[in-house]
Amino acid sequence: MAAPLALALIHYPVLDKHGDVITSAVTNLDIHDIARTARTYGVARYYLVTPAAEQVRVVERILAHWQTGSGARYNPDRAEALTLVRVVADVAAALADFAALTHATPLPVLTGARRTDGLSVQACRALREQQPLLLLFGTGWGLADSFFAQNWPVLEPVQGCGDYNHLPVRSAVAIILDRLLAAPSAETA
Amino acid sequence: MAAPLALALIHYPVLDKHGDVITSAVTNLDIHDIARTARTYGVARYYLVTPAAEQVRVVERILAHWQTGSGARYNPDRAEALTLVRVVADVAAALADFAALTHATPLPVLTGARRTDGLSVQACRALREQQPLLLLFGTGWGLADSFFAQNWPVLEPVQGCGDYNHLPVRSAVAIILDRLLAAPSAETA
Repeated sequence: MAAPLALALIHYPVLDKHGDVITSAVTNLDIHDIARTARTYGVARYYLVTPAAEQVRVVERILAHWQTGSGARYNPDRAEALTLVRVVADVAAALADFAALTHATPLPVLTGARRTDGLSVQACRALREQQPLLLLFGTGWGLADSFFAQNWPVLEPVQGCGDYNHLPVRSAVAIILDRLLAAPSAETA
Repeated sequence: MAAPLALALIHYPVLDKHGDVITSAVTNLDIHDIARTARTYGVARYYLVTPAAEQVRVVERILAHWQTGSGARYNPDRAEALTLVRVVADVAAALADFAALTHATPLPVLTGARRTDGLSVQACRALREQQPLLLLFGTGWGLADSFFAQNWPVLEPVQGCGDYNHLPVRSAVAIILDRLLAAPSAETA
């Protein structure tokens, strides 16, 4: 019986294209796309992590529109997916919320295209037998180096077919959830 | 040696949430996200299929910005991904272009969440040993019924973990390309 899994989409500290640490803006599409993908794969929570108070207000306004207003009537599937979303100031707050939800100590797992020394999908699935996992995804050009100094495990990057590796974070989330969580198909079961 | 694979993102004829046939609008994010995912997985072409002349002009303006203007300097990885994009009026035009590129007869393969009688990923990979494949994805609420009357093969839908199945098309493309095209990992090779 695998433990619950949650996602955190990090908006600070992340890198820009020059490698400098920035706070990125929360985008409407990251909220909706990733919430729907998370809901499809049975993810327990989707945390939007931003320390920017103004960004928190924007997200809460978007959530309220789709969950209680005319948006909920227009698209109930979208409202259902958004019930997974929580806006928090940092990873510690996400871990605290997820611990309260699961009555266990969640383990953060880092993701990113720049690392080649990561855990395999199989090893990550095995970790999930032990405790809840919180997968951390960076916006912009990826998670800042400070995350990688924490001794948290790192998932192997998604490799496509060649040396181009600039997946949108929305696509990386979808691929990683499918690899970690999809039921085995008849051909491989 | 597998044959080349291409994608077509269909904007007409597709369904709206009531099941009526509509022409959907091309979105900026569908262009960029899917082009980057396609480039990562070595896809040969990404066709935006719309019969609306005004939409064609919008797409061509976006492509020109990122491929030749200040956008190309700002983000060369994005420019590289967009070299895969072609805007065509219908699936026949996409097939003709892809045939000219591959000197072969491409086979359209339909996708969608509503079908349960589809080809497995393994069977789809085997088809690709025979001839180039053009994967068709619907925007809005999916491909119109007329596509399914053509005797074209249909790929099995992406199943998550449960009965919620409302993946964004951008996520569905990413997951299907990963299932069909990713190099096998060490654990399953």
